[in-house]
Amino acid sequence: MYRTHTCGELNAANIGQTVTLCGWVQKTRELGGMAFVDLRDRYGITQLVFDADKPELVQQVKAIGREFVIQVEGKVIERESKNSKMATGDIEIAVIRLTVLNPSEVPPFTIEDNTDGGDDLRMKYRYLDLRRSAVRKNLELRHKFAFEVRRYLDEHGFLEIETPVLVNSTPEGARDFVVPSRMNPGQFYALPQSPQTLKQLLMVSGIDRYFQIVKCFRDEDLRADRQPEFTQIDCEMSFIEQEDILEMFEGMSRHLFKALKGIDLPKLPRMTWADAMKYYGSDKPDTRFDMRFVELMDVMKGHGFGVFDSAAYIGGICAKGAATYTRKQLDQLTEFVKRPQIGAKGMVYARVEADGSVKSSVDKFYTQDVLQQLKAAMNAEPGDLILILSGDDAMKTRKQLCELRLEMGSQLGLRDKDKYSCLWVIDFPMYEWSDEEQRLMAMHHPFTSPKPEDIPLLDTDPASVRANAYDMVINGVEVGGGSIRIHDAKLQQKIFEILGFTPEQAQAKFGFLMNAFKFGAPPHGGLAYGLDRFVSLFAGLDSIRDCIAFPKNNQGRDVMLGAPGEIDQKQMDELQIKVDLKK
Amino acid sequence: MYRTHTCGELNAANIGQTVTLCGWVQKTRELGGMAFVDLRDRYGITQLVFDADKPELVQQVKAIGREFVIQVEGKVIERESKNSKMATGDIEIAVIRLTVLNPSEVPPFTIEDNTDGGDDLRMKYRYLDLRRSAVRKNLELRHKFAFEVRRYLDEHGFLEIETPVLVNSTPEGARDFVVPSRMNPGQFYALPQSPQTLKQLLMVSGIDRYFQIVKCFRDEDLRADRQPEFTQIDCEMSFIEQEDILEMFEGMSRHLFKALKGIDLPKLPRMTWADAMKYYGSDKPDTRFDMRFVELMDVMKGHGFGVFDSAAYIGGICAKGAATYTRKQLDQLTEFVKRPQIGAKGMVYARVEADGSVKSSVDKFYTQDVLQQLKAAMNAEPGDLILILSGDDAMKTRKQLCELRLEMGSQLGLRDKDKYSCLWVIDFPMYEWSDEEQRLMAMHHPFTSPKPEDIPLLDTDPASVRANAYDMVINGVEVGGGSIRIHDAKLQQKIFEILGFTPEQAQAKFGFLMNAFKFGAPPHGGLAYGLDRFVSLFAGLDSIRDCIAFPKNNQGRDVMLGAPGEIDQKQMDELQIKVDLKK
Repeated sequence: MYRTHTCGELNAANIGQTVTLCGWVQKTRELGGMAFVDLRDRYGITQLVFDADKPELVQQVKAIGREFVIQVEGKVIERESKNSKMATGDIEIAVIRLTVLNPSEVPPFTIEDNTDGGDDLRMKYRYLDLRRSAVRKNLELRHKFAFEVRRYLDEHGFLEIETPVLVNSTPEGARDFVVPSRMNPGQFYALPQSPQTLKQLLMVSGIDRYFQIVKCFRDEDLRADRQPEFTQIDCEMSFIEQEDILEMFEGMSRHLFKALKGIDLPKLPRMTWADAMKYYGSDKPDTRFDMRFVELMDVMKGHGFGVFDSAAYIGGICAKGAATYTRKQLDQLTEFVKRPQIGAKGMVYARVEADGSVKSSVDKFYTQDVLQQLKAAMNAEPGDLILILSGDDAMKTRKQLCELRLEMGSQLGLRDKDKYSCLWVIDFPMYEWSDEEQRLMAMHHPFTSPKPEDIPLLDTDPASVRANAYDMVINGVEVGGGSIRIHDAKLQQKIFEILGFTPEQAQAKFGFLMNAFKFGAPPHGGLAYGLDRFVSLFAGLDSIRDCIAFPKNNQGRDVMLGAPGEIDQKQMDELQIKVDLKK
Repeated sequence: MYRTHTCGELNAANIGQTVTLCGWVQKTRELGGMAFVDLRDRYGITQLVFDADKPELVQQVKAIGREFVIQVEGKVIERESKNSKMATGDIEIAVIRLTVLNPSEVPPFTIEDNTDGGDDLRMKYRYLDLRRSAVRKNLELRHKFAFEVRRYLDEHGFLEIETPVLVNSTPEGARDFVVPSRMNPGQFYALPQSPQTLKQLLMVSGIDRYFQIVKCFRDEDLRADRQPEFTQIDCEMSFIEQEDILEMFEGMSRHLFKALKGIDLPKLPRMTWADAMKYYGSDKPDTRFDMRFVELMDVMKGHGFGVFDSAAYIGGICAKGAATYTRKQLDQLTEFVKRPQIGAKGMVYARVEADGSVKSSVDKFYTQDVLQQLKAAMNAEPGDLILILSGDDAMKTRKQLCELRLEMGSQLGLRDKDKYSCLWVIDFPMYEWSDEEQRLMAMHHPFTSPKPEDIPLLDTDPASVRANAYDMVINGVEVGGGSIRIHDAKLQQKIFEILGFTPEQAQAKFGFLMNAFKFGAPPHGGLAYGLDRFVSLFAGLDSIRDCIAFPKNNQGRDVMLGAPGEIDQKQMDELQIKVDLKK
């Protein structure tokens, strides 16, 4: 061992001890013939002192720069000017020996919480970026998070079972990454988008309670919060009903919040998907703040304002205390909702003045009497700002209003990253209509069970059938979701029919699972959490990237490793494939 | 919840309770108007009784077959004829309600510990194979094993950090699996053979103590004990010396043996690689039994037996108590060592008779006096059998003698799967000569540090340089291995030179790691265990396959999933690749 202690553990109790420390030079400074070095490792920073009466040591310090790796031997002494912000701030090390273990070139950016390095540079030198405690702390949190997940599930009888990474290409879902097989020329493995079918097979195997923290892969065009490889906490249980799953995993979240954040999570409210859409315009409502949608068709329609009179939906939100918004701020909000990503045509606002009167942007169409009805409907008080959107497609308009609500929540400081609001969204629809495919598509996946009471509707109105499917939502982020699966072959057959598969197509696509189900499938269900997102939320991060040690950029590249890259002709010959670039 | 209890937990304390159980029908039988069902789940088997006075229930039982999934409600009653072999053997359930949750076709093989299913059938229906407790127990053990690994490493300050699966193709080592990148046409990711370079980068990052239980991939032709994807316990530490690594991971093994097998592992002996080769002809000696090699050049050479007189190596083993071996058994041993996989030319034996005299197969060349010297050299006693091999290549002959020793160990019952003998093999050579490449190759990998005292030999006799490399060996299986890495850029440069890389080649192949090392690499080292092997050993398995939920066969196929398989032309067009089958 090169050291007796780490740079994070020495304190007043160690005064007088002779110790050896190792680490990286955070900074050096000289003062009246003395020298000081802040020595850093994963565990903290310790101040080193080189006394003026040891000039050869002070000379050595002059030769070392930032990020040199050094080893020092010295005596723990009390600091004259203590630093209560540092764990080691009561002491310093009077150095008697200094060894340079490895020099360092000047790093391309400063290794500080507030670094001067831009994103690209930090990604290229990710190994230096990870030295910053702001980034490293996320990895520490991720480690603890995964460990506590495992502890909880182990205590509840779940077995972690590794499923293969080299699997078969799955029908439906996103695009697969594929791997050419050398031993089976012309054939390809696929990397799993999730172990969905494999975990269902494990239920057929009688494993009863399965989980896995597992890498999954999707070859999709990347957005800010997506990575081509991501990590799931994948879980499945047998002989259970939806209630059992919700209980079990609410318990897991409670355990995680307590163990990692010291937060006692209250009982999770449950909101139907229909209510979530109605009141928040989203299946993952941010419930840290209220500002629910109020439908205003009754109040605002039929008063001669053409936009509203022709609308299929009119809805408003009440921003408490925002009546002070200036014309400029309101114009910016209008611009915000008119951006192509949101797509609203315009926005109507109404202020509740101190005297209780309402002043709106469409005053010429509405009497004060109607505006007072609006105020009442919105439950608005003096000082509040009412914002209204309308449109000819209720669902689309709700989604626009959702964006406006979230923006107002942010502007009013209602989306505190240290506050957590968790809920279950339940009763998802079984199907959603695909304009592209011109057919009903499974909203979750084709093995999701309908709610038993809705089964008769499969024949008459499949689009209205609700599923035994559920999502866990925290602060507007879907951290996990799942469903009860169909274990009845006949019901499964009917679901496939509704999805437009012939029995032959169903067999071709899902044959191995359907065959397995012939040999005694238990009732089962489960869910999967996105570990990256869940950890990001705990870490208060805007992007999942900073809780991933070596993330990829938006082009799917690891700029540090230089992956992907070209491969040898020999390798392609062995695989019997060819690159065939489009002109 | 479909049940109040599992099939493994009811006992005499539950008598009188009304319970609901679910599970699979192991077997049914009728007896004098009554019916009995053995109901099975992951947790055990419980006997169900259907009383003759409930004929409609007995009738229901007649309609159910093996592997049906059923739910029963009933009363826990005391069994008349108790079965002390079963955890639930004191009770049975007097059933009052039976519900078939799912029927089952007749399974293609029996779901029993001793099944009638062959390997291929079991692999095709792996989900049924996993219902057998003999297989399921291995997965349970694997779960516990991995959990205890994590517990130990977490307690010792290691962070589990996920490294990417989509990486760059690595030079040296085995063949990579590659993944064409759609977003970067013509370029490929590689799947990691191990996270070796990434964990070294994490040390450069100051992570200090890293581990990961991680899938690794090698596209090699498969042997019995190899899978294209396998799982490593991958570990690395900073500011340590070899001794620290050995201590830390000896501690982990001790923890695992205690927690999972109830075994107090003694302090692990350490054997140099040179001694392992000299005394066991293997770098992974099975030390459950002694039977060490004795070199017999001094004793047996120069007596006119041409085979020995011309040999570069003569070595023997003493099989205690095997003097009773018949001529036929000895002939079979000779055939064994002459098989092409082993390649010996022949075998000489000598029996020590009850009166102490020695009788050998080459008596005409040796006086009893010489044979007594042989007996003394071999430390043989009356009743022992001495087996001798010779050859013109010492290393090859030792390897042949190793095979003979292991075979004798097996024949004499000295390789008990419930007995564990663990050791460290240390001081591996840095290099081994490659006949194929006609150059020295890194025995471990090119980042392995030489022993400091051997560094001067790098210039004069590189082949004799020993490395700070070590393997953990249990019962003749290498369960893990690693090394101290080079952190000094100049030394690394020299090692590359010896391996025959120009500075340009070294930069091209290992550039990103070398660049990282310029910014302050700490002294570091680590090791990796093969989880599949380690668990197999704990489970007493001959093959790693049975501790893997969904293994692949020798052609790299998952016959259950049908992977690999063909993919759509559309997918290939998107990836801009083509299959190009050799004629």
